[in-house]
Amino acid sequence: MAGILEAKPRVGYSYCRDQQLARYRRTLDGIKVKDVCSVPVVIDESDSVYDGIVMIFLENVGSLIVLSEGKLVGMVSRKDIIKASMAAVDVKTMPIGMIMTRMPNLHLAYPTDNIYNAAKRLIDCGIDSLPVVEKRQRDGQVVYEVIGRLTKTTITKLFVEVLEMSDVEA
Amino acid sequence: MAGILEAKPRVGYSYCRDQQLARYRRTLDGIKVKDVCSVPVVIDESDSVYDGIVMIFLENVGSLIVLSEGKLVGMVSRKDIIKASMAAVDVKTMPIGMIMTRMPNLHLAYPTDNIYNAAKRLIDCGIDSLPVVEKRQRDGQVVYEVIGRLTKTTITKLFVEVLEMSDVEA
Repeated sequence: MAGILEAKPRVGYSYCRDQQLARYRRTLDGIKVKDVCSVPVVIDESDSVYDGIVMIFLENVGSLIVLSEGKLVGMVSRKDIIKASMAAVDVKTMPIGMIMTRMPNLHLAYPTDNIYNAAKRLIDCGIDSLPVVEKRQRDGQVVYEVIGRLTKTTITKLFVEVLEMSDVEA
Repeated sequence: MAGILEAKPRVGYSYCRDQQLARYRRTLDGIKVKDVCSVPVVIDESDSVYDGIVMIFLENVGSLIVLSEGKLVGMVSRKDIIKASMAAVDVKTMPIGMIMTRMPNLHLAYPTDNIYNAAKRLIDCGIDSLPVVEKRQRDGQVVYEVIGRLTKTTITKLFVEVLEMSDVEA
């Protein structure tokens, strides 16, 4: 019944004119991070800051996920890049690993996280992007394999799509 | 009745168990840009790029609204700052007006815009932030006075708040 009575035998029909509300609620209830996250944009920690800048422009993203031997080791934001540029370092030779925010100081999202929790984490932590990871064991160590990214753009897109679905504009 | 029947005299009560749905829809219907936008973070076009960088860090924002004699003339994003840094210009002497995206090439939001329209504009135009403006006549010319900013952070916060209100987590 999804919380809304649609018909009452022997009493008559008592319907909800806007059944989209129920659909709206059901949709949001069911959305997981894995359903909406984007493809991760990754760089190796040995690549240069310059390579990172080029990638930020080519991929049109706000931050890069930094890997070492395929596992998550850090994140680099546009702010980190600006700081590095200001510090008069040679961006062509400095490895991006030198300016990244390093594990374990990263906030993460998991594929099965509720979208509400992930969005709240973005706001509470004051960040623009979360790497979406799966925890694995490799050689007896816990490693995080990156399978996506979840950003404020993801949430804004979802906000628009859900409003379109529930036809708020109509 | 907001699309949901709550009581039917002479037939008996036919209620919606989850009345939060109605509240949810009503809330989203009524939200205007002016209800949720943030305080604008502005800089004068004659200020230096360096001043802009300092302001981006101090105010913790993704972009700055550029004014000239109190009226909107442009926007500067973190990407514009990175480009300028790469171009080996002297950020301490170059005015921020040299690197901004200039009017009339800006996307704008108005205080009475529906929040859906503003969020859709952010996505469709691939931008992070909209200046919220009021159109005025000054000396026979149309000028835009900035009264706020609307960003993907604003929308993400709203998404979280609305979900909390409708208690999706419960």
